[in-house]
Amino acid sequence: MQITPGPLLAQINSPEDLKKFSKDKLVQVCEELRQFIVDNVSVYGGHFGASLGVVELTVALHYVLNTPTDQLVWDVGHQAYGHKILTGRREKFHTNRIYGGLSGFPKRKESEYDTFGVGHSSTSISAALGMAVASKYKNSPIQHVAVIGDGSMTGGMAFEAMNHAGVSDTNLLIILNDNCMSIDPNVGALKDYLTDITTSHTYNKVKDEVWKILGKLSKFGSSAQEVISKVEGAIKSAVLQQSNLFESLNLRYFGPVDGHDVHHLVEVLKDLKDIPGPKILHCVTVKGKGYEPAEKGNKTTWHAPGTFDKVTGEIFKKVPSTPQAPKYQDVFGHTLVELAEQDPKIMGITPAMPSGSSLNIMMKAMPDRAFDVGIAEQHAVTFSAGLATQGLVPFCNIYSSFMQRAYDQVIHDVCLQNLPVVFCLDRAGFAGADGPTHHGAYDIAYFRCIPNLVVSAPMNEEELRNLMYTASRYGGPFSIRYPRGNGVMPEWKTEMREIPVGQGRIVREGEEVAILTLGHIGNYAVEACQDLVKEGLNPAHYDMRFVKPLDEELLHEVFSKFKKVITVEDGCLMGGFGSAVLEWMADHGYQAQVKRLGIPDSIIEHGEQLELHRDCGFDPAGIAATVRSLTEVVSVS
Amino acid sequence: MQITPGPLLAQINSPEDLKKFSKDKLVQVCEELRQFIVDNVSVYGGHFGASLGVVELTVALHYVLNTPTDQLVWDVGHQAYGHKILTGRREKFHTNRIYGGLSGFPKRKESEYDTFGVGHSSTSISAALGMAVASKYKNSPIQHVAVIGDGSMTGGMAFEAMNHAGVSDTNLLIILNDNCMSIDPNVGALKDYLTDITTSHTYNKVKDEVWKILGKLSKFGSSAQEVISKVEGAIKSAVLQQSNLFESLNLRYFGPVDGHDVHHLVEVLKDLKDIPGPKILHCVTVKGKGYEPAEKGNKTTWHAPGTFDKVTGEIFKKVPSTPQAPKYQDVFGHTLVELAEQDPKIMGITPAMPSGSSLNIMMKAMPDRAFDVGIAEQHAVTFSAGLATQGLVPFCNIYSSFMQRAYDQVIHDVCLQNLPVVFCLDRAGFAGADGPTHHGAYDIAYFRCIPNLVVSAPMNEEELRNLMYTASRYGGPFSIRYPRGNGVMPEWKTEMREIPVGQGRIVREGEEVAILTLGHIGNYAVEACQDLVKEGLNPAHYDMRFVKPLDEELLHEVFSKFKKVITVEDGCLMGGFGSAVLEWMADHGYQAQVKRLGIPDSIIEHGEQLELHRDCGFDPAGIAATVRSLTEVVSVS
Repeated sequence: MQITPGPLLAQINSPEDLKKFSKDKLVQVCEELRQFIVDNVSVYGGHFGASLGVVELTVALHYVLNTPTDQLVWDVGHQAYGHKILTGRREKFHTNRIYGGLSGFPKRKESEYDTFGVGHSSTSISAALGMAVASKYKNSPIQHVAVIGDGSMTGGMAFEAMNHAGVSDTNLLIILNDNCMSIDPNVGALKDYLTDITTSHTYNKVKDEVWKILGKLSKFGSSAQEVISKVEGAIKSAVLQQSNLFESLNLRYFGPVDGHDVHHLVEVLKDLKDIPGPKILHCVTVKGKGYEPAEKGNKTTWHAPGTFDKVTGEIFKKVPSTPQAPKYQDVFGHTLVELAEQDPKIMGITPAMPSGSSLNIMMKAMPDRAFDVGIAEQHAVTFSAGLATQGLVPFCNIYSSFMQRAYDQVIHDVCLQNLPVVFCLDRAGFAGADGPTHHGAYDIAYFRCIPNLVVSAPMNEEELRNLMYTASRYGGPFSIRYPRGNGVMPEWKTEMREIPVGQGRIVREGEEVAILTLGHIGNYAVEACQDLVKEGLNPAHYDMRFVKPLDEELLHEVFSKFKKVITVEDGCLMGGFGSAVLEWMADHGYQAQVKRLGIPDSIIEHGEQLELHRDCGFDPAGIAATVRSLTEVVSVS
Repeated sequence: MQITPGPLLAQINSPEDLKKFSKDKLVQVCEELRQFIVDNVSVYGGHFGASLGVVELTVALHYVLNTPTDQLVWDVGHQAYGHKILTGRREKFHTNRIYGGLSGFPKRKESEYDTFGVGHSSTSISAALGMAVASKYKNSPIQHVAVIGDGSMTGGMAFEAMNHAGVSDTNLLIILNDNCMSIDPNVGALKDYLTDITTSHTYNKVKDEVWKILGKLSKFGSSAQEVISKVEGAIKSAVLQQSNLFESLNLRYFGPVDGHDVHHLVEVLKDLKDIPGPKILHCVTVKGKGYEPAEKGNKTTWHAPGTFDKVTGEIFKKVPSTPQAPKYQDVFGHTLVELAEQDPKIMGITPAMPSGSSLNIMMKAMPDRAFDVGIAEQHAVTFSAGLATQGLVPFCNIYSSFMQRAYDQVIHDVCLQNLPVVFCLDRAGFAGADGPTHHGAYDIAYFRCIPNLVVSAPMNEEELRNLMYTASRYGGPFSIRYPRGNGVMPEWKTEMREIPVGQGRIVREGEEVAILTLGHIGNYAVEACQDLVKEGLNPAHYDMRFVKPLDEELLHEVFSKFKKVITVEDGCLMGGFGSAVLEWMADHGYQAQVKRLGIPDSIIEHGEQLELHRDCGFDPAGIAATVRSLTEVVSVS
């Protein structure tokens, strides 16, 4: 159901409409846009704090720029709700992040105003620079703007891009949206530096003050002039040319400016349009601005709060009537602390996802042994490798899709050296509403080709705990993938035991067809078997637990006994778990009919996990249908 | 054959031996070490300029530090020859980079002095920080030093690591080895900045000058005192606290120092041992220092010159008696210019490998259309994606093993958006003497699981040209992998034609056994078939050209006709080309005996490509042996 916009916002179906308003209406436009976001997210959920923080910036940008001809790239895109609403998607906005609806991120297929698809951090400067270089090549005098948060700025590729931008002579404006936050509070030296230059001892204020003082010095007459001139020269070269991290990279630095003063932003952006060359505008904003519970409350909670009562600010929580299985994330978080209490070698590392991964549990319990290293997956992995060289056992928790950022480091710094780093791949499989940028679809394929690396996935909480325990004692690279969301064991605090590396297990004996599953998705096979048994079918089910090494004993058993085998995985079919089974079959001379279920070779859009599993044919009904299709006796409907 | 060291160097079998010398002997030690490197490399080849540039730094570090207890990490490792020679490997040094011999890079398995294996750029700060954090955790008061070049400093993960190091309160010293070079001249804003602070208007000189001037101002009496005090305060906060990129990241900055003054280096390093916290020493060096042809000549040539006459500086070039097939690299370089001359949409991008990839041919011919973006693979890919959004067709050339660095960008920024970026993967397959860090072993597996991406490999120069031509017109993501080294066609300048995407070809008709090959390695199958024919065998041979999409028509033909199939690839067996064939077979219900040849699931060390192919069983003899093993008639020996 559409949310009713305010009277001005109701008239805005494109930035052209926005430009029809006089500047004195912009404050009201901002208010209405903010309210529209509050009204929508409170009912439908989604990302929240980031978009509220850039309402004024969004309005000012579309007011000043000639979008979509001028090119605007939003880094990550959590903050782009206002942008979507102003660029023709207001009436569809209630479908945001819903199956078949708008994407939660800017997306080229969705709108010509979305110049670059985003989701992962720190890509915007590279992309906008590419656009700016193209415009320069084509002599096209348009504007190119990348809006990037201070959190995203810690990602190395942003620095790589600035290093290039600084010598590019292009018309590129980087807007640093400085709100001191990633999803969790931003960390690292850069954050401190940005705080420094926005507080009282700022570079800019110092600069102003020095000029004033030098003016006063002139009263000492001509004998002082020479000295003053020298001081001025020295200060100029010191203060003006080299006083700022960004200016060190040859980006002209402007700001800091108040990111919530829409009139001033409009003036500044107009001025900057006329200043050629690569430049950066430091814009200070407040995440959650204008909605008091979000602005004053816990900013991590309000990053993506789910639905809430917009009047009281009370976040709605479903209170289940029966004990629920925990999130895998929390099983990870608590189990790591349990393990670390027993084993002083264990450390925890997250690149900017302490709350998302639940590593914050260890960070609170053992602050000297758990590290948030910022949005810096590459560094997270090699830093872990460094710890491992010293006899420690780092558990490095990275979402599956973000692990793509550290692929080389996994190969080059960990696995080539056979170092005991444990990779916990959260959000493996479909991410759900976050969509294709965040789906953890490829990790089985891209991990299992790496020598020395154990690749595993638990079917439930107990297995996750046992695999973590096993990994902590293994002595080499070890990966454990598990999905976003809940497991299946309300009573999950089982005693941990070591699983022989590469050992699967029989879930149910059966005949004619064997189902081999990997990870949590095995529970779908259990459901499918329950239905099939009622139909008189009796498939066997094996929980393989390891893609690498494979359980060869179990596979000999399977392929000796069965000529019809189904593999099921919550990962890409190309090169994945099913493919590993086919390789093993070929290498061992077995012949069987193998049907592989998993994520097909195409981009899967956003939606609830179960919706996507259904579409890919490996929800319980899909598995059951596949079993039926392989059996001689067609089930009587 | 061992090279004879000078009299002092002959006494040094470990850093302990070095420490026995009084400081006044160090200049001679440096001379002898430099000479030993010249003597070795001139005869045996290897990396050269970088190691000569850090002779003094290497000697000073091992003189001052308590290695291997103190931990020294060399970034990339091209510069670590002196380190290897001083740490017990002098007598084996003539085996450097040779099959079975020393590795060309620091390697943990080789020596306890090699604290971290390297090869790829920009890892050292992360690794050393991990070690330093471990020492802090263990209350171990040891030193941790990362030596990183100004080229490596442009890689984003170095910035990620500094952002973490700056707030780490660890005992970490970063030595910035500033020689203005990667393999090619270093590029980007950071390089300019480093040049700025080492030339006359430096931060440090300015700082000194300002203090002097303020002293003079005091003569104006007490009425000036207040003003002076204010100026001083302003300058302090401006100049001292914020005047340096590294200090912005809370790293104490020291230098720049002359990296060739061993006595001064010893003093500085001793002083720095007593200064706690993360810090950076800016050390200015000259690549090739002390060997005039390298110091004064083309630094890119002398990065790894091959063998040369050490007296004249003449680099030995093999002059072949017959016309040779060109390097694939040069075919790429010239063909790209040919294509770009016809098509104004085509652009070229390399992350710091203009000479290695031969993109320098286009950079010279069309400087506004070809870009060296620095050691910045991530940025290179997303920058290319940005260009592609503007209707351009970027050819982004990245070595296979370095593409691991940009894996997320390929998925997230190019393929999810289906943008027409052409990836040319140089050094696919075994890199040869550079060894496991540089082998391009995994790209087929890690690329073929990505939706929308075409994955191809030419068997010869003509196919490379045709694939490049095809890719330039394709309109989506397209990858072409080819090996380091020479092709097979002396007359390679064939007219280009489009290959239908996914179309393979029959190289030879045959019976009983079909060999399916991908890429250059197909020439081995040709050789094998020539031998087999003499034995009365008659295998068929198909050059598949594409792993994705597979040529389904051809595969139906193959599997309809043959029950014995061999796949051959210069890539990992896990998830690779052979695996793709197995998947296709399973999906289409074919049964056949399939033997996959390729790189096994283990770390393959360095050696000549052919030596490594032989070890992996897919050199011509290995392929022939596999065919024989599959045929009923065992060949008569």
